Amino acid sequence: MKDLKNYVEQNKDRFLSELFELIRIPSVSAQESHKDDMYRAAQWIAEKLVADGADKAEVFKTDGHPVVYGEKIIDKSLPTVLVYGHYDVQPAEPLDLWKSPAFEPEVREGKIFARGADDDKGQSFMHFKAFEYMVKTGQLPCNVKFMIEGEEEIGSPSLGKFCEQNKKMLASDVILVSDTSMISPDIPSITTGLRGLTYVEVEVTGPNRDLHSGLYGGAVANPVNVMAKMIASLTDENGRITVKGFYDDVEELSDEERKEMARAPFNLDHYKKEIDVAEVGGEKGYSTNERTGIRPSLDVNGIWGGYTEKGAKTILPSKAYAKISMRLVPHQDSKKIAELFKAHFESIAPKTVKVKVNYLHGGEGYVSPTDTVEYQAASKAYETSFGKKPIPVRSGGSIPIISLFEKVLGVKSILMGFGLESDAIHGPNENYPLQQFYKGIETIPYFYKYYAEMKK
Amino acid sequence: MKDLKNYVEQNKDRFLSELFELIRIPSVSAQESHKDDMYRAAQWIAEKLVADGADKAEVFKTDGHPVVYGEKIIDKSLPTVLVYGHYDVQPAEPLDLWKSPAFEPEVREGKIFARGADDDKGQSFMHFKAFEYMVKTGQLPCNVKFMIEGEEEIGSPSLGKFCEQNKKMLASDVILVSDTSMISPDIPSITTGLRGLTYVEVEVTGPNRDLHSGLYGGAVANPVNVMAKMIASLTDENGRITVKGFYDDVEELSDEERKEMARAPFNLDHYKKEIDVAEVGGEKGYSTNERTGIRPSLDVNGIWGGYTEKGAKTILPSKAYAKISMRLVPHQDSKKIAELFKAHFESIAPKTVKVKVNYLHGGEGYVSPTDTVEYQAASKAYETSFGKKPIPVRSGGSIPIISLFEKVLGVKSILMGFGLESDAIHGPNENYPLQQFYKGIETIPYFYKYYAEMKK
Repeated sequence: MKDLKNYVEQNKDRFLSELFELIRIPSVSAQESHKDDMYRAAQWIAEKLVADGADKAEVFKTDGHPVVYGEKIIDKSLPTVLVYGHYDVQPAEPLDLWKSPAFEPEVREGKIFARGADDDKGQSFMHFKAFEYMVKTGQLPCNVKFMIEGEEEIGSPSLGKFCEQNKKMLASDVILVSDTSMISPDIPSITTGLRGLTYVEVEVTGPNRDLHSGLYGGAVANPVNVMAKMIASLTDENGRITVKGFYDDVEELSDEERKEMARAPFNLDHYKKEIDVAEVGGEKGYSTNERTGIRPSLDVNGIWGGYTEKGAKTILPSKAYAKISMRLVPHQDSKKIAELFKAHFESIAPKTVKVKVNYLHGGEGYVSPTDTVEYQAASKAYETSFGKKPIPVRSGGSIPIISLFEKVLGVKSILMGFGLESDAIHGPNENYPLQQFYKGIETIPYFYKYYAEMKK
Repeated sequence: MKDLKNYVEQNKDRFLSELFELIRIPSVSAQESHKDDMYRAAQWIAEKLVADGADKAEVFKTDGHPVVYGEKIIDKSLPTVLVYGHYDVQPAEPLDLWKSPAFEPEVREGKIFARGADDDKGQSFMHFKAFEYMVKTGQLPCNVKFMIEGEEEIGSPSLGKFCEQNKKMLASDVILVSDTSMISPDIPSITTGLRGLTYVEVEVTGPNRDLHSGLYGGAVANPVNVMAKMIASLTDENGRITVKGFYDDVEELSDEERKEMARAPFNLDHYKKEIDVAEVGGEKGYSTNERTGIRPSLDVNGIWGGYTEKGAKTILPSKAYAKISMRLVPHQDSKKIAELFKAHFESIAPKTVKVKVNYLHGGEGYVSPTDTVEYQAASKAYETSFGKKPIPVRSGGSIPIISLFEKVLGVKSILMGFGLESDAIHGPNENYPLQQFYKGIETIPYFYKYYAEMKK
């Protein structure tokens, strides 16, 4: 694969302009107004896969947004790699905080700025181009399948059914996913753990209409004040979540395992400076990396109620709302946690209000072993292109579908991510360094090479 | 004044269509986009006052929205009544909860539905028509001045200066205000107490950008969760406000005074049913009427932060906001309370966040005696038209300017309100019963009659 670097160098402008085409389709899965954009993005990918060398590619309808499936089968006796990615992106709001329009990609300071630049259009697209290279240069050593979905950011509600119904078509030896990040541009890492997720929306209703806060204030419970008290009580003074039964299935790691984890390079001062906080906060007794890697968490993702425009309106609001999500560790069941949360939240509501808890979505955590052929092939690929052996790390993020793949398809996934924590995925000014983008394209073909060799 | 009822009966359709003209001007003082509407409304009132019989009326510019002043001086040796009202209204949001458009008045079930139908276009307008009657029928027994402002709903920031600069022009013996409510359509009452107000907006900042709630959740303090804890701690388990020094100037009423207050008719079941709550809530040891009448309160009027659109976005927000107002009782100083709140809120912020407290507006509480000529004239006027002596009550609302009138102009105010608690002022579907509207026009002339007689 001596020509790989040259190939990327000679085609880099084309790679970028192709990716930009995909980014310009605002495929926001959470927003109904983008329904048509989802089909456009899926169709674009299917056509691209065929152009890049796939035998065929098809857009599959689901109950939600479509799934793109494509394949190149060179020899049925060879191993098969299934590449998973997603073409849907998070909402771009708040729009006024973007320095350049979210869906108009722009390169500044060596980075692509746009919604989806990293998560996951940029990272999925590296696989298309690595595949193109292997096919065009006749170096593809095994069969490849692609499954690119459009509902990852809303919890992949249709993908489980899709996998169930297409087990044979999706049959593979390993699933390859680039939807995570590395420690830093010169410290490669492979994600070996993911957290699960339970996402709910709560509604707290006080009086049947907004009341005058002078005429009623002090005599009628204010649902915003009440909800603040309820949310406040969800974590205690040690940063532990108070939902009854929440920690029942949480696995405590051994001191040895924690010592091993602590060896990953981490600079707390740099971490704080980068997000501009004077102090970090979280569960007492755990380090920052442990708090995201091996411990569950509870965050309000959004809150609203009453008058939120400019100026002063003196009302006692009728309703208050919050979106609350919990990140879970392996063994915690997302549906069970949703039930525990609902029961707990209802139980702490005073009689002055009515409470509704709506489950939005969820998924399970995941841990992958490091002593497998698949992990070793990935490790060697990074070592070849980055010159350093990657560190296995547990990420705080969730890709709920990974544990589902194992359950439904019986196949383990390898999380070969090339993002950086500074990419601001999900936030305004999401970006992806060009260097990571091109380096990813230069790393992936080695995985195929080593994997095919090791499986012989 | 035997012709009064006839006069109202014969002109009632015209009265209504004139009021509707005023209501259709969306004079929302809190919203910059309605700046021109404020001038239109002021100009409309000035022209109306002259048409109704004023010698002159003028629109005065201020640093904010204009003030309308008009007068009819019949004999300088006679007493002078200054009528105060306001033409500005609260924002109409949330618009989707209105059954008919907020600025398109509609009569349903004997009530006028529109923003400002009661507060305070409807109530101010009754004075214009009572004045018209007295002038047209030659029965005006004293001098009348009108001061109708456009900033009451945002705390009257310009009216203090206007009064200071126009003391001579505004000289009067009593100020008459209709901007409060009665106990019920057949139980007239006169408001003898008002609460003060301190209104602030708080901003709580965590990380410098929205973060991925998976990658950071559990390790970085979430400003929404933090703000919930801070707001939750502002009131204790007995419903008392915890801001340090908050109760220092609160006057405790004697058991006798509380017993006297408790004689006002009040039906808790009806109260709860009307706003659809299973239980009321508030400061322990006080009745519902005491909680709004003689005790201060703290309400979140609005809260927002993070992702508030449809669907799920997994972010750890950068910022959280809340609008918080406190109703104050006489002797509490609104500016001092604002300072106490700011100091307290800053002191309870953990080091994981940065906090800003912005003072939006405020005003002082007010108590008026019942043994004055002015009160007795008002009492007799209600007794004449309603057939019952009105009950003096302390309202929970605030008209900050009333205490300022006493301080700057040296004149006491009489709060002759004709609204009902069910009028939903400040909320969606604000309304004003036609019966109250016409009855108000039939009551006000008697105040002038009795007042002029008593002052002889």
